[in-house]
Amino acid sequence: MNLNFDEIKKEIFLLRNLINNSLKKYLHYKKELPAIIIKAMRYSVLAGGKRLRPLLSLFTAKLLGLKLNKVLPFACAIEMIHTYSLIHDDLPAMDNDDLRRGKLTSHKKFGEAIAILTGDALLNYAFEIMLKNTLKEKKYYKNYIKAIYDIASAAGINGMISGQVFDILNENKIISKKDLNFLHLHKTAALIRASITSVAEIAKVNYKIKSFLKIFGEKIGLAFQIMDDILDETGDEKKIGKKVKKDRKKGKSTYPALYGISKSKEIANNLILEAKKYLSKIKGNKKGLSYIADYIVNRIK
Amino acid sequence: MNLNFDEIKKEIFLLRNLINNSLKKYLHYKKELPAIIIKAMRYSVLAGGKRLRPLLSLFTAKLLGLKLNKVLPFACAIEMIHTYSLIHDDLPAMDNDDLRRGKLTSHKKFGEAIAILTGDALLNYAFEIMLKNTLKEKKYYKNYIKAIYDIASAAGINGMISGQVFDILNENKIISKKDLNFLHLHKTAALIRASITSVAEIAKVNYKIKSFLKIFGEKIGLAFQIMDDILDETGDEKKIGKKVKKDRKKGKSTYPALYGISKSKEIANNLILEAKKYLSKIKGNKKGLSYIADYIVNRIK
Repeated sequence: MNLNFDEIKKEIFLLRNLINNSLKKYLHYKKELPAIIIKAMRYSVLAGGKRLRPLLSLFTAKLLGLKLNKVLPFACAIEMIHTYSLIHDDLPAMDNDDLRRGKLTSHKKFGEAIAILTGDALLNYAFEIMLKNTLKEKKYYKNYIKAIYDIASAAGINGMISGQVFDILNENKIISKKDLNFLHLHKTAALIRASITSVAEIAKVNYKIKSFLKIFGEKIGLAFQIMDDILDETGDEKKIGKKVKKDRKKGKSTYPALYGISKSKEIANNLILEAKKYLSKIKGNKKGLSYIADYIVNRIK
Repeated sequence: MNLNFDEIKKEIFLLRNLINNSLKKYLHYKKELPAIIIKAMRYSVLAGGKRLRPLLSLFTAKLLGLKLNKVLPFACAIEMIHTYSLIHDDLPAMDNDDLRRGKLTSHKKFGEAIAILTGDALLNYAFEIMLKNTLKEKKYYKNYIKAIYDIASAAGINGMISGQVFDILNENKIISKKDLNFLHLHKTAALIRASITSVAEIAKVNYKIKSFLKIFGEKIGLAFQIMDDILDETGDEKKIGKKVKKDRKKGKSTYPALYGISKSKEIANNLILEAKKYLSKIKGNKKGLSYIADYIVNRIK
């Protein structure tokens, strides 16, 4: 068992390297473009995140028997979309944060105008990367277009954006559990789910497996946000790399605010158990996805 | 000749209606989403722009013998991308404008946070629309993916974004003609060009015609920005629907600043003449594109 654990940790280390190298390659400087925009894109994307979403994509590829290089561009695109959302979320008009991943936020480092444009650039570039790679997949155009559409839906008004809007609308309000779930499912779980289901589109799995993966993704996504809110209450600022206890100050509705820390942890743990139940219905190498699911509730940053 | 003129004006009126109805249809309210984000998207998109870019797409479809409904979703998507860029460009951290198309800017109306998210939402939604419609075109996946990629490239760091960044970097600086052309070609002409060349991708025309259309698009795009800068100096605030004489105040490099009004007009007129020379090399119904090219230098708003 211990050996198994070391193996998967080593695999994650290698996959993270693969992801980081690929991100770096995509974000190369081009002499004909203003260097500052590439610099600002690199600054935020290469700041050393957990790479949770791209890891989920790559482990889903392993589960479904896809070659990693068929999925890697999409995994990188999702990480760029995630990073754009953080950059815009940190802006003074939004969460007004100074620190992210242990470094100054984009607008603190480059100014607000460049930070806004850097977010825009990353969102747009994510689509450029996915489209360019789709053009290489002559036999599988349809699957790849569906994968991009899945990601686009998760990032847009039917996903992340509405979560973000809902978050802003409900500052300093106590909201119902139903509304809190809407918030978390849209703001966080949608893109986490899409990092898994978009790979299912590429692999063209049947409807049943796709729906199991969808439920798995949503449940771990929800658990991820609950843990995020718990860490905001209990976590170590230095380890997390951003200010803590912000939610309370902003009067944000969170699981800890509604249920307390220990009940929230229980809910998150249960979500992971349920998620893994759905995962167990699928045949194949599930070690990676299963490990990440556990990691989500055990992480300290 | 006069009759001809009336005909084309009537056609533009009908096509604008088609575009506006289609935009409205795409931006319908959904009871499960926070109404404010759809409201803010509608507010800016349906504020009655000239619809220059979608008109160019539809007239290119006519020239190349494509049915309008094959291109209309892309035309609408381009208008959404254009509108997102205006919303972000108007933000306090960027151009800090209060008026756009004769109405309050998005952030003045809805606050900065919602304005940022509305821009994000429109960019993302443009891709959703294009991808969803591509899925309907089984026989032509490749052409449609190339069309989306063409638009994405024009909107991203190789196009509009770099133009915007370059604009910010060069406030209160006198820049060379070469740099000014880089600025205009990226900030403005790239998306105008793509509204034409993306249709050429869908129609799968040969390389020669594509390159004529590319040159036509770039030249009218450049002329459009020169006229925009001239109107900023000489135009009527009420007709244009935004504050004038802003460029001078912000120390922006423009054609009028470098060459004066009359020489700038001459340059714009020459660009249109050259553009039409390239258009004339293509067989088909060129009336629409030709009329828009002339309109660009004759417009008063």
